[in-house]
Amino acid sequence: MTLDKWRQELTDNFEETVKWRRHLHEHPEPSFEEVETAKYIVNQLKAMGIEDIRTHVGNGYGIVAKIKGKHPGPTVALRADFDALRVTEEVDSVFRSKYEGFMHACGHDGHTASLLSVAKVLMNNQHELHGTVVLLHQHAEEVLPGGAKSMVEDGALEDVDYVFGIHLGAEQLLNQVYYNYGFGSANSDTFTLKVQGKGGHGAAPHDTHDALTVGTQIVSGLQQIVSRLTDPVKPAVLTFAGFQSGGEAYNIIADSAEIFGTVRTMHQDVQQMIEAKLKSMSSQIAAAYDATVEIDYTQGYPSIQNTPEEVEKVKEAFLSVFPKDEVEEVEGQMGGEDFAYFLLDKPGAFLRVGAKPPENEVAYPHHHPKFEIDEQALLRSGEVFLTIIDQYLTH
Amino acid sequence: MTLDKWRQELTDNFEETVKWRRHLHEHPEPSFEEVETAKYIVNQLKAMGIEDIRTHVGNGYGIVAKIKGKHPGPTVALRADFDALRVTEEVDSVFRSKYEGFMHACGHDGHTASLLSVAKVLMNNQHELHGTVVLLHQHAEEVLPGGAKSMVEDGALEDVDYVFGIHLGAEQLLNQVYYNYGFGSANSDTFTLKVQGKGGHGAAPHDTHDALTVGTQIVSGLQQIVSRLTDPVKPAVLTFAGFQSGGEAYNIIADSAEIFGTVRTMHQDVQQMIEAKLKSMSSQIAAAYDATVEIDYTQGYPSIQNTPEEVEKVKEAFLSVFPKDEVEEVEGQMGGEDFAYFLLDKPGAFLRVGAKPPENEVAYPHHHPKFEIDEQALLRSGEVFLTIIDQYLTH
Amino acid sequence: MTLDKWRQELTDNFEETVKWRRHLHEHPEPSFEEVETAKYIVNQLKAMGIEDIRTHVGNGYGIVAKIKGKHPGPTVALRADFDALRVTEEVDSVFRSKYEGFMHACGHDGHTASLLSVAKVLMNNQHELHGTVVLLHQHAEEVLPGGAKSMVEDGALEDVDYVFGIHLGAEQLLNQVYYNYGFGSANSDTFTLKVQGKGGHGAAPHDTHDALTVGTQIVSGLQQIVSRLTDPVKPAVLTFAGFQSGGEAYNIIADSAEIFGTVRTMHQDVQQMIEAKLKSMSSQIAAAYDATVEIDYTQGYPSIQNTPEEVEKVKEAFLSVFPKDEVEEVEGQMGGEDFAYFLLDKPGAFLRVGAKPPENEVAYPHHHPKFEIDEQALLRSGEVFLTIIDQYLTH
Amino acid sequence: MTLDKWRQELTDNFEETVKWRRHLHEHPEPSFEEVETAKYIVNQLKAMGIEDIRTHVGNGYGIVAKIKGKHPGPTVALRADFDALRVTEEVDSVFRSKYEGFMHACGHDGHTASLLSVAKVLMNNQHELHGTVVLLHQHAEEVLPGGAKSMVEDGALEDVDYVFGIHLGAEQLLNQVYYNYGFGSANSDTFTLKVQGKGGHGAAPHDTHDALTVGTQIVSGLQQIVSRLTDPVKPAVLTFAGFQSGGEAYNIIADSAEIFGTVRTMHQDVQQMIEAKLKSMSSQIAAAYDATVEIDYTQGYPSIQNTPEEVEKVKEAFLSVFPKDEVEEVEGQMGGEDFAYFLLDKPGAFLRVGAKPPENEVAYPHHHPKFEIDEQALLRSGEVFLTIIDQYLTH
Repeated sequence: MTLDKWRQELTDNFEETVKWRRHLHEHPEPSFEEVETAKYIVNQLKAMGIEDIRTHVGNGYGIVAKIKGKHPGPTVALRADFDALRVTEEVDSVFRSKYEGFMHACGHDGHTASLLSVAKVLMNNQHELHGTVVLLHQHAEEVLPGGAKSMVEDGALEDVDYVFGIHLGAEQLLNQVYYNYGFGSANSDTFTLKVQGKGGHGAAPHDTHDALTVGTQIVSGLQQIVSRLTDPVKPAVLTFAGFQSGGEAYNIIADSAEIFGTVRTMHQDVQQMIEAKLKSMSSQIAAAYDATVEIDYTQGYPSIQNTPEEVEKVKEAFLSVFPKDEVEEVEGQMGGEDFAYFLLDKPGAFLRVGAKPPENEVAYPHHHPKFEIDEQALLRSGEVFLTIIDQYLTH
Repeated sequence: MTLDKWRQELTDNFEETVKWRRHLHEHPEPSFEEVETAKYIVNQLKAMGIEDIRTHVGNGYGIVAKIKGKHPGPTVALRADFDALRVTEEVDSVFRSKYEGFMHACGHDGHTASLLSVAKVLMNNQHELHGTVVLLHQHAEEVLPGGAKSMVEDGALEDVDYVFGIHLGAEQLLNQVYYNYGFGSANSDTFTLKVQGKGGHGAAPHDTHDALTVGTQIVSGLQQIVSRLTDPVKPAVLTFAGFQSGGEAYNIIADSAEIFGTVRTMHQDVQQMIEAKLKSMSSQIAAAYDATVEIDYTQGYPSIQNTPEEVEKVKEAFLSVFPKDEVEEVEGQMGGEDFAYFLLDKPGAFLRVGAKPPENEVAYPHHHPKFEIDEQALLRSGEVFLTIIDQYLTH
Repeated sequence: MTLDKWRQELTDNFEETVKWRRHLHEHPEPSFEEVETAKYIVNQLKAMGIEDIRTHVGNGYGIVAKIKGKHPGPTVALRADFDALRVTEEVDSVFRSKYEGFMHACGHDGHTASLLSVAKVLMNNQHELHGTVVLLHQHAEEVLPGGAKSMVEDGALEDVDYVFGIHLGAEQLLNQVYYNYGFGSANSDTFTLKVQGKGGHGAAPHDTHDALTVGTQIVSGLQQIVSRLTDPVKPAVLTFAGFQSGGEAYNIIADSAEIFGTVRTMHQDVQQMIEAKLKSMSSQIAAAYDATVEIDYTQGYPSIQNTPEEVEKVKEAFLSVFPKDEVEEVEGQMGGEDFAYFLLDKPGAFLRVGAKPPENEVAYPHHHPKFEIDEQALLRSGEVFLTIIDQYLTH
Repeated sequence: MTLDKWRQELTDNFEETVKWRRHLHEHPEPSFEEVETAKYIVNQLKAMGIEDIRTHVGNGYGIVAKIKGKHPGPTVALRADFDALRVTEEVDSVFRSKYEGFMHACGHDGHTASLLSVAKVLMNNQHELHGTVVLLHQHAEEVLPGGAKSMVEDGALEDVDYVFGIHLGAEQLLNQVYYNYGFGSANSDTFTLKVQGKGGHGAAPHDTHDALTVGTQIVSGLQQIVSRLTDPVKPAVLTFAGFQSGGEAYNIIADSAEIFGTVRTMHQDVQQMIEAKLKSMSSQIAAAYDATVEIDYTQGYPSIQNTPEEVEKVKEAFLSVFPKDEVEEVEGQMGGEDFAYFLLDKPGAFLRVGAKPPENEVAYPHHHPKFEIDEQALLRSGEVFLTIIDQYLTH
């Protein structure tokens, strides 16, 4: 009953939700520079009558706001990130980005608007809440070291019992709710290899230590890290995203090569093995050709580890609220997300909501200049949040 | 006797020779843009009293000048190239390049000054010459398609019986004269491979055709062109001088890779085999990974093929003039030289003269910003030219 | 209560269970040749009073025996395989293999003895059974096409509602019971690649198409099937288990290479992709070097897909019977098992029971000449079977 | 005149020459086991009246016989090797090998018969010889350490001034005489690499150090020794002639791989570089994959270094005797020959005589079971020897 009413209120407020989202979309600010975005959010929260608002939480413009229920009970945090990307929008819409070179190309505008709409419903229904809702409006999800970790360190999860997050998926079926029991994202590390050989004239390779060729041997040899050295039931990706060597002239052998990329894993033992092997193997392969390699390896966001009990609990709730075929278990994803830090601190889950515009034949991936979400999904993600709160704070 | 006198006159004129060389060194002009350089040379030739001068020969500022002997006899052409490089000089000398970004970093200033000094001696001794000397002051040796071919096509070798050229070697023993019977340089070709795959997110390689990795397989696989497919007694080099792929971000799989380099061979059958294999192998390796490759192959200068009889003749002459241990047979070199075109038309030889400053511990290679020659070598290269003329036109 | 009594009877019969197992261990017969083994089993079943026994089920010596309960109810099949391996035993025990070159090196003797002991208990308690127990004594698990598929086709699972199997694990903790919800084994395929080049003298590689080197390029290139072309969350293994090329003499280039191995996957789409890529990539890589490759790919046992509901049901039962820390969820394994065919036909689960002798520091893997199991595990695997029957036929 | 008469005598004796050759062909004996072959040769020499015969020279059945001329003069040695191969003949002829498994598949029977026929002519003309002819009938050319080195050490070249050898070429134009000024064969080394990893089950590569895959990386990586590390004007071949790894079963990862092959070079510095790199690179590449490699490198016969002066001298003689187009300069060959040891001790040359049967479309290479020579070539090789003797001992 309660939830039905809340959902109705959410639907009634859809127009404003869209307005919020489009405002954010028109005014994208990149990670760690979301000054106006944060102000805008705080203004909306205040307008709803929310008073317990902390700003500048963590290493940036993080916001923590609280909605206290009339009755005692547990505390549940809901998170939405709000930073945009350094991408130039190529979508032709009435609410196209007004800031050249910046774009909400990952749907964080939608996350934020959706959480605001949830906040509004809940503020209207504080008397029904047995416990507290914490709104986590997070800055800087896109750029290391991210905002989440620092928000946790700055007390954002103090007194919180459970934490939930949502991500809209531009390539996923509109309104589909996806959950998974285990890993919700990957450990997302980055690395750079600088191969140092000895340059020279292209006609005299024997007088050089040809760094370009050594680099290709490293890329080729390191394929075995995933193909042979990783336990096959433990996911791992080693992607070489850049290879730059030589280029001065057709007849100059390069003295160096720079190679970089990303490592994605779910298990910590695999992550550690790959870091170690990346270092030892590239050094030894380089040495075989009288070259050296300088390696810089940075551990990025850890993998999201959903709490199976909470996944089970909210899944059952979703199944009782949404059409059964719109609730779907999925396998882990290899993407990175700093929501992982919230789950390292408290139990909870990270959920995905499909947002592919059904009329589009092609869905452009996240971070693409033509990225688009269907705004109907804002309603569904709001319903997901409300279902969670209903489950934890009214039963 | 004659030659002894000529050598004495050459020595007597050394100061002016150095002056010419330093003037050229201070005023380097790149290939196909040698306006002032050509004017300067013509002025010197005229000042010596030479009247038969053709300018703008071939596809640039080539100069052909003739010194007719008093007596009938064969015609021998002597060639010196005069273009500079787009290199910023790092040598600290009183005659340092005055043109920022340009430098005589391959010794062509020395070749030119040396040939001018030879011209002066010969003009003073026309009465002793049985035949004609043709001075080939060549533009644009450094940049394809070079000046030599077009000079030949423009009649530079008309009525010429033999043609000789010299190159100073900054890394070779000062005053040493090097000859070889066969290949004096390599067929010097260039190529570019553009690998086209399909880009995507670094965490989802299975949705892409990773061009970077494909490129490394091509570089690795094509090593066998030299190691397995080439007749081991026929020299061949396949150098990959540039590899550029990706670089947008640590987590973006590149959709393309650009790879380029040079192929050096001496035999035409090997040259043709490598061009064919470069194309077929890179295409097939790319296809194995669902990528394609676009290949651009440009045949550069052909290999110099010295005429054994003329090499023998001038070698014997050198041995009778210079200390025996300063005349040395060498193996073929893999460098490129458009002097090859002159030898495709007429018999003759290409010789090298060592010019390493003995006081320098390290000799910087040609094209290097710290490239240097010892000016004493100008005398030796002049003597080499005079010895040749003596051999052909006074005996 | 019932179960407690059954377990006691099982324990009381342990000596005979061990006797059975040791008899089988001393008389190992390889797959499809288990004449005496099958007779021995049938004799024991008859001695227990079991009358409904079918022999020669499927493509070999398969046995299906039924124990009908007094009361109506579902039918549950329990499977134990009984073939041995072509391995020469190196364990020094009183019951060492008497057949040189053959050995029960995978624990099937234990499976069989354990199921016999379970049969004996159930025959003693037919009055308590609500339903029917089907004993599946399976031949030829080790060698393609296996016995399971043919037994199913020959009606072994007719009227069966659920089917369960057990495997002892020589490297797993003694008495630990392992279950998993999804894939219990891998699609286990095999392949052979015959590379055909052109042989010749070792000093003239350019006159050959060196099959050995081509083969190494194929092995190297195909690493990318797992490292780049497979969805990272879907397990895959591509193992090259044999590479034979050349060997006639130090100076003869081989005209062919034979490479073979195994492909392990869990998902059918990955299995199909790998088969396709193995074929296309090896052909195209070979073509790049003017060689051809003949590919023979054999799909082996499919992956075991446990029924989550039945896993859940028996897991709960185990937890109520065994110490909690002796019941453990595990991830899927990449091994192959033809029990998969039973689960393609009927719901059920495949379980593992640890059997590492605790006094042994090193546990030798299955198929190793020093493979050993702790006979205590026969009791535990019998208890697992009894717990399942209790769960389905007495509740 | 003298030579004309000698050549006539040689021709007149052709029938007997063929008889000798066919006897040897029917009775092939492998290296170091040529008991009857040596006896047969000695018998023929004695029958000609030659008395100064040493047998068992060196480390086997080497024979040194002398024909002293009537007049004083230099001493010239002529060498023919006489060992056969462990090959089963597949040529169908009236003089097919009678010893199953053995065959004169390299033409040494022809060398021997030819030298015998030369000996007979010279014995008939001792009065015309100014100097001494030494006949070197050499054993064991085919198998390391060869017979030549030990014959030199045992004094075979004592008092010898010049030494010449001939090889028949089954794939070369009948009766063509080939000479070259420099390297007449290659340093012919052999090596074995034993890669030691850690075996295991094919489904669990991460628990192993997969020696097979490591081996392929070594073969692939070491291509660069020739393609990048060797001076391109210095010939080099690195051939992997054998690769054996795994093979027990489709699902067992091999713990070792054995790789072997040959290295061919002409220059000692390249030979040393390759030996060093083969060792260091394979060790370091193996280490990158946690494997080790045990390397056994054996230096074989050195390269033949013809004496340019002697080549020049005999070339001129050939040109005056044979049709001009039947005397041809060739480039160095990468084959191995222990005649090199004779030339390390004394000046001389190694020559080749074409022996391809003109009626055969296909010429099978040396060591092939279908290897064949045209017996007409025995006459030509005899003429070559006689021309040399005429040149040195009658002029």
